[in-house]
Amino acid sequence: MIGQDAACCAGLSSPLDEDQAAELAKVFKALGDPVRLRLMSMIASRGEGGEVCVCELTPAFELSQPTISHHLKLLRQASLIDCERRGTWVYYWVLPGVLDRLAAFLTAPQTAGATA
Amino acid sequence: MIGQDAACCAGLSSPLDEDQAAELAKVFKALGDPVRLRLMSMIASRGEGGEVCVCELTPAFELSQPTISHHLKLLRQASLIDCERRGTWVYYWVLPGVLDRLAAFLTAPQTAGATA
Repeated sequence: MIGQDAACCAGLSSPLDEDQAAELAKVFKALGDPVRLRLMSMIASRGEGGEVCVCELTPAFELSQPTISHHLKLLRQASLIDCERRGTWVYYWVLPGVLDRLAAFLTAPQTAGATA
Repeated sequence: MIGQDAACCAGLSSPLDEDQAAELAKVFKALGDPVRLRLMSMIASRGEGGEVCVCELTPAFELSQPTISHHLKLLRQASLIDCERRGTWVYYWVLPGVLDRLAAFLTAPQTAGATA
């Protein structure tokens, strides 16, 4: 699981140390796959407090249920989402903390407001 | 190279389509490595218009010059940095466009301002 503090204040305005880089890289790696990004966007698009049944996620992909579950597990291990089983199904929702830290990390002073 | 438009308006507030996800995943994957993240932060910390000689980057790592060059090439292929050879050395700088798009992607309405 990703710690709450290690990368909280790191941004691109100063060089990362090895520990900060290792921790942040895990989260970027979790997002570095098209299936996981689509799963994240499907879950996040429900908005704050929203959640999605795994039974709604799986039919969107031409992948087996175990494969989808594996991708969801990697997102959970990066603290990007959490889940709960209720009856037959597992329900997923986004944890905004790590997403906010990633966005803050990427919005360094020298890039904020810059145009491509 | 990452296109300028495909993922410009995609955010976590709506599900990504396959093309958007594939394109964004490439950039996240490029950042999903501790060495590449440290290289990015070393280059970005020079601020807007700043650049870094590869001769300053390599000594910070216990890695060979070809390995560092490979990581820098992957960052360039993701349009995160660019470079120019001048005389003996190659100089690197950050391209803010893709970073800004990633930050915008992660700052979905439902997560902006939320606390962990």
